[in-house]
Amino acid sequence: MNKVIANMSMSLDGFIADTADGIDQLFGWMGSGDVEVPTAVDWATFRVSPASADYMSEAMAGVGALIAGRHLFDITQGWGGTHPLGVPIIVVTHEPPADWPHTETFTFADSVETAVELARKAAGDKNVVVASSKIAQQCLDAGLLDAINVDLVPVLLGTGIRWFENLAKAPVRLEGPAVVEGNGVTHLAYTVHKA
Amino acid sequence: MNKVIANMSMSLDGFIADTADGIDQLFGWMGSGDVEVPTAVDWATFRVSPASADYMSEAMAGVGALIAGRHLFDITQGWGGTHPLGVPIIVVTHEPPADWPHTETFTFADSVETAVELARKAAGDKNVVVASSKIAQQCLDAGLLDAINVDLVPVLLGTGIRWFENLAKAPVRLEGPAVVEGNGVTHLAYTVHKA
Repeated sequence: MNKVIANMSMSLDGFIADTADGIDQLFGWMGSGDVEVPTAVDWATFRVSPASADYMSEAMAGVGALIAGRHLFDITQGWGGTHPLGVPIIVVTHEPPADWPHTETFTFADSVETAVELARKAAGDKNVVVASSKIAQQCLDAGLLDAINVDLVPVLLGTGIRWFENLAKAPVRLEGPAVVEGNGVTHLAYTVHKA
Repeated sequence: MNKVIANMSMSLDGFIADTADGIDQLFGWMGSGDVEVPTAVDWATFRVSPASADYMSEAMAGVGALIAGRHLFDITQGWGGTHPLGVPIIVVTHEPPADWPHTETFTFADSVETAVELARKAAGDKNVVVASSKIAQQCLDAGLLDAINVDLVPVLLGTGIRWFENLAKAPVRLEGPAVVEGNGVTHLAYTVHKA
């Protein structure tokens, strides 16, 4: 069965953005290497280390749908209609935008449960990626998250938006990780322990 | 020259203890392996994976002095007079205990600057380990920290005491890490970037 995987770049002290949603300190590794990893869109090509390129290419090939929160959808302006992963997107929101034209690839769901159900169907036998911190937290709380893939960045932000800010059920035990050492990033792939 | 190294076990979400100073979720890896790593005291022997044992043995052999905060000193009751590392201890406090008998190995300093100076002298050509989160933060702020060794534990605590709670100067760029994969822990050794 496909897996639901939370994936984000995170500072060593647990932040996925600064207090103003800034990600400059966290996304630099995606453009600092020699190996190009193309995406589904012209405006985004990763340039990473050979190890990261292998890791990302394999991970990206395994993704069949993506779940995003409304905040991420808004600040990225819906990625202009096509997410770099080129997969169906499920946006969790109570108020779907009335005039969003890209209905062929975007679906709006009013709960994480519905979003996961729709994303699993859309993904077929591929995996579902959760790209927003709050949605990942809600999936964890609901027992819907199978894995957490951390791109751990060697920086301390001190303050900002924590990936796991509001866990209703903690501690959450994890298994692993599988480790891939990139350049300016360490990829850590954990499995969520299920009793 | 010797290095000043902060070293702690940390949850994936950045906590080094729960809200009640509890470390049960974070220290389990130190007793869950097959290889014994002896310490300077009878009451503490690590039992870890072969990879962790090699990593810890080398790291411990390189330590010449330890800096602790008063809070850690108090909750451990001064390790009964001998820290497992068996090295001189510098405790940062404005009010040294009047009746502490182990003056041969314990020194009390009223600032991190003084503590680092004393610890460097005591360590000779070996390294200084900083074992308290607040002291590590103050050393970082003062430019006195050379390295951060994280024993990253696969658990999300959600809440608790953050290692880097109150950084005066952030972001702090790091270099590395060197990675050693243990069992139930990932050892990440970072260098603090100095401009």
